[in-house]
Amino acid sequence: AASRLWLSGLCFLLQILNILLFAVFVRYSPESSAGHCPPQLNCSRRNQDSGFQQPRFQDVHIQVLISFGLLVAFLGRYGPGSVAISILIIAFAIQWAVLIQGIFHFFLNDKIYVGAQSMVSADFCTTAVLISTGAVLGRVNPVQMLLLALLEVTLCTLNEYILLSLMGVSDSGRSLTVHTFGAYFGLMVSRVLYQPHKDKRKKEERQNMGHQTDAFAVAGTIYLWVFWPGFTSTTTVHDNAENWAVLNTYFSLLASTVATFILSPVLYENSTPRMVQIQDATLAGLAVMGMAGEMLATPFGALIAGFLVGLISPLGFRFFTPVLHSRLKIQDTCGVHNIHGLPGILGALLGTLLTLLATADTYGDRLELVFPLVAQGSRSVTHQALIQLSALPLTLLFAMLGGCLTGAVLKTKVLRCSPDAQYMENIAFWEVKLGSC
Amino acid sequence: AASRLWLSGLCFLLQILNILLFAVFVRYSPESSAGHCPPQLNCSRRNQDSGFQQPRFQDVHIQVLISFGLLVAFLGRYGPGSVAISILIIAFAIQWAVLIQGIFHFFLNDKIYVGAQSMVSADFCTTAVLISTGAVLGRVNPVQMLLLALLEVTLCTLNEYILLSLMGVSDSGRSLTVHTFGAYFGLMVSRVLYQPHKDKRKKEERQNMGHQTDAFAVAGTIYLWVFWPGFTSTTTVHDNAENWAVLNTYFSLLASTVATFILSPVLYENSTPRMVQIQDATLAGLAVMGMAGEMLATPFGALIAGFLVGLISPLGFRFFTPVLHSRLKIQDTCGVHNIHGLPGILGALLGTLLTLLATADTYGDRLELVFPLVAQGSRSVTHQALIQLSALPLTLLFAMLGGCLTGAVLKTKVLRCSPDAQYMENIAFWEVKLGSC
Amino acid sequence: AASRLWLSGLCFLLQILNILLFAVFVRYSPESSAGHCPPQLNCSRRNQDSGFQQPRFQDVHIQVLISFGLLVAFLGRYGPGSVAISILIIAFAIQWAVLIQGIFHFFLNDKIYVGAQSMVSADFCTTAVLISTGAVLGRVNPVQMLLLALLEVTLCTLNEYILLSLMGVSDSGRSLTVHTFGAYFGLMVSRVLYQPHKDKRKKEERQNMGHQTDAFAVAGTIYLWVFWPGFTSTTTVHDNAENWAVLNTYFSLLASTVATFILSPVLYENSTPRMVQIQDATLAGLAVMGMAGEMLATPFGALIAGFLVGLISPLGFRFFTPVLHSRLKIQDTCGVHNIHGLPGILGALLGTLLTLLATADTYGDRLELVFPLVAQGSRSVTHQALIQLSALPLTLLFAMLGGCLTGAVLKTKVLRCSPDAQYMENIAFWEVKLGSC
Repeated sequence: AASRLWLSGLCFLLQILNILLFAVFVRYSPESSAGHCPPQLNCSRRNQDSGFQQPRFQDVHIQVLISFGLLVAFLGRYGPGSVAISILIIAFAIQWAVLIQGIFHFFLNDKIYVGAQSMVSADFCTTAVLISTGAVLGRVNPVQMLLLALLEVTLCTLNEYILLSLMGVSDSGRSLTVHTFGAYFGLMVSRVLYQPHKDKRKKEERQNMGHQTDAFAVAGTIYLWVFWPGFTSTTTVHDNAENWAVLNTYFSLLASTVATFILSPVLYENSTPRMVQIQDATLAGLAVMGMAGEMLATPFGALIAGFLVGLISPLGFRFFTPVLHSRLKIQDTCGVHNIHGLPGILGALLGTLLTLLATADTYGDRLELVFPLVAQGSRSVTHQALIQLSALPLTLLFAMLGGCLTGAVLKTKVLRCSPDAQYMENIAFWEVKLGSC
Repeated sequence: AASRLWLSGLCFLLQILNILLFAVFVRYSPESSAGHCPPQLNCSRRNQDSGFQQPRFQDVHIQVLISFGLLVAFLGRYGPGSVAISILIIAFAIQWAVLIQGIFHFFLNDKIYVGAQSMVSADFCTTAVLISTGAVLGRVNPVQMLLLALLEVTLCTLNEYILLSLMGVSDSGRSLTVHTFGAYFGLMVSRVLYQPHKDKRKKEERQNMGHQTDAFAVAGTIYLWVFWPGFTSTTTVHDNAENWAVLNTYFSLLASTVATFILSPVLYENSTPRMVQIQDATLAGLAVMGMAGEMLATPFGALIAGFLVGLISPLGFRFFTPVLHSRLKIQDTCGVHNIHGLPGILGALLGTLLTLLATADTYGDRLELVFPLVAQGSRSVTHQALIQLSALPLTLLFAMLGGCLTGAVLKTKVLRCSPDAQYMENIAFWEVKLGSC
Repeated sequence: AASRLWLSGLCFLLQILNILLFAVFVRYSPESSAGHCPPQLNCSRRNQDSGFQQPRFQDVHIQVLISFGLLVAFLGRYGPGSVAISILIIAFAIQWAVLIQGIFHFFLNDKIYVGAQSMVSADFCTTAVLISTGAVLGRVNPVQMLLLALLEVTLCTLNEYILLSLMGVSDSGRSLTVHTFGAYFGLMVSRVLYQPHKDKRKKEERQNMGHQTDAFAVAGTIYLWVFWPGFTSTTTVHDNAENWAVLNTYFSLLASTVATFILSPVLYENSTPRMVQIQDATLAGLAVMGMAGEMLATPFGALIAGFLVGLISPLGFRFFTPVLHSRLKIQDTCGVHNIHGLPGILGALLGTLLTLLATADTYGDRLELVFPLVAQGSRSVTHQALIQLSALPLTLLFAMLGGCLTGAVLKTKVLRCSPDAQYMENIAFWEVKLGSC
């Protein structure tokens, strides 16, 4: 009975903590400064320096969905058993991310000034957390999930701050700071928490994916097609130019979807892919355009990138995930390595290549927005490309160290024990019960 | 056989009536006046006096969804059995609300001038109707539902006109005129139509809520998270300031969601709440921010309000709803008292408190929009606060009298009898058959 | 085994073809010209000549959903068995439509310049393809579907080019070029592919429509209510006037929904319509406002048109579809004739009538946008009305000839044979297997 109150108590403590911290630190942005950063505010983010437009309020909420888009996407693979917990994670992580991101980005005179943009930043962070939970879903209990969110938001924001603000990396669609970071963070947590006897049931479960699961996958796919292109380009929207990021992301997604139909009959028995495979291809096509989306000056580049990643992702599922499990002892419940990890890395490499090719000629006014330091003349494109490239190993290092650390914390006996992990696997549909230790 | 045509005939009459009234009275707003009220039009609504921005056409349609959001929300509690009828109610109520609201707000030279804003107003009204039907769902037949919509739209608009236009109450997110009015109107109708032998089956039904129901609750929750904050702030959006209403509503919703996870293991056996409970918490967190949303100058206020209402709403379900039923003989199918009634009242009280605390200093230009009469100097904040406070009992009175009246009309033998009420409860999934009297 | 790779190979070829064509021809619109057509670009489209506003990026993506709206709508009638293939069709058709539409509309200096507007145009085209597939769903295999998309996109764009650019027809919501064209094209393909022994199972299937089907119909209906009015008015949005197209479409949809509740108890046993019937009424109410939406100066006109079409569509299902099948040997899986064909024709006739009644007085500045040639004085309204009227038989001719041609191509033995058509009907839920010949 007492163990049943573990989660309840932790939620209470964390929510009270959030309220207190908000009361002490968080204020709304001053009226006059809405949309762009007031001069006295230490705005380190590139977009704000160069006429970044405040996202419309409506849009902000459209973006918020995307956390749910991912949520729905995972439902398609693992079933809706953990949806209540996921919503708790989102509700907590957004509050926590507003605080942590505020400390790094919107801190002035002992206060954090929040606005529409804070919500978007917080949401990016929450997306990374959801990606990580995709790797460990079904093998951690809600209390561990909450702590994972607490730690990952902090580390993800630190990584983002170093990359975007200190190094001046251009990663508006977050190939590195969300997709790559989230995937490898989750994989390392999964590695540390490895329990060998846990994988038999998973296979059967996957075979049992029935109609409802497929319906969720349809919903998730539609969601992603519709809202994600707008999401990745939130921080790049400006009024007086075609939005390359949106169009490139969209083209990439089209090509990766078609690619799934090419590989599926070759790799598996069935002639058409399952809905979850189409959904995975969609996600991979989106992840690869995170960094490169706003840099690609020609649509066919996006088609090729999407096509390749749409071929690589199913190959990863077929050949790499089993190796990952048997050799490296990393279980990857939702296959985040194939959907977010690999495409994120490819996206970063593509972004580096495109940085090398960037000229004021093809970019026009856009150069100011995409590479402000290059436009100002304080950096050459080669220099910028080196910076972009070096951000990749740095992110991987951060994600892996952070994942190990978090995994170690979650493995402490008091956490692992309180809810019976064995029991977790046998959870009925929506009930996630905390057993006795 | 004849009874089967009751609903058909009534629909025909009402639609012909609507067409005739539209033909005689309704015209599109003159071209030049799009967005704001032409000087000769008797625009009594506060927002129009002070630079209210016409909602974008796209946005209007996003708002329209919210009726469906509620619809989907109710599906989660009662099952999709009545969804066809709900859509009929919406289709009729919107037309009727355009007419009735037009008479009060957009009437000039014997014509009603409609535009994007009329649709938003009509939609607010339809939301109140849907809230009321939530209290009586499963115990009234479609013909009674249509008449309920007819009467409630009229009374709700009258209440709104008195509060917003005559008294100058500030209630942009409609804590009072939609949530409180809709809930208590529905509860009184439910009281008048009380049938003691109808409550056994309901309990079993609730136990039988299966997977599909939970899937609907997931959809409803996501819907509300995404679109409601924008909905409550439709009439407050202005371009040159951070939109407090959206952000406060959002923070409130986060805190109330976490609160559900705190109370659920204490009140019930299961360690995590069911999806319908999370959905209820979301709705309660939204309702409480209706009036106060645009007045709260600090985010932590929204967190506290949402947290409290997220605790009160489950307590209401556990302890108050049974009392309501056994003592006051009020059946509340979807628990609208806990989800809309109580939070609406709390929101109104919070709004009153915040009105007292309002200063030109914290509000800036915003004062003109939130409290135009205070900004113009014709009212002190204390005076305004008194007006805000007095609006609460007035709305309760209106809602209860209106509910009694409507209940009495619906109880007349000709209506109650035509469809067999007993039969209604045993309706198969989607079929709502009208039995013989 | 070899036959299993048919679809895979065709996808591969088509995607490589798309990438090559994109690489050679497609470029992003030059920076400076974003939103409106640069002077040197041969912009033949009426909207661009007269201050057409570039759709916002966010909006574009909202529009894209509508393809899915239709997809979801068809799920409600036929079941989700073919959803994977539909997504493939969409992914291919959008790329192909960008190319073909680009050749007609955005071609300059050997390059096609794409932007947000290209995506909207491509999406209109994809919608026509989805409507056509609705007529033949369940009786063609995926390879045939892909070829149908390839041919229809080409012919649909040709028809659109002749009507909108050469003849100057005003059809912003695409009553003719999408709804009528798509429906009759699909019906003719269905006629050519007629197989008499295929209709027994369909009837049983319809009886077997269970809960999940109805849930999809609910989702489809909500989708259409929310997003379609914005979709039909994409090319008409301008900032300084009430958007008649949105409001008219919305009113039409309300009336047609109510009309379904009137006829359903008369035509069928059950007192309330099934969800799929409500969804059909919604679609019909939308299709009828395609051309007339921006021309109707009074809301009651939209109510009457929606009301009539809401009565005609169920009558068509009850009396005309069986005749179509038994006499004309045309199978119409999803009833596209009643949902898109007839309402499209009625919409075109209504549009012609309204063109006759158009005066500068009622239209104001709007005349420039709706009938640019009339506003410039180079055409009288009678002349314009004649042109509008003559577009109807022309579109029917194009659609029917195109449908026959496409049907003949699809009937060639190599295509018909490769996947066992018999087998197709017995497909399990999501698996669409290609049998051996």
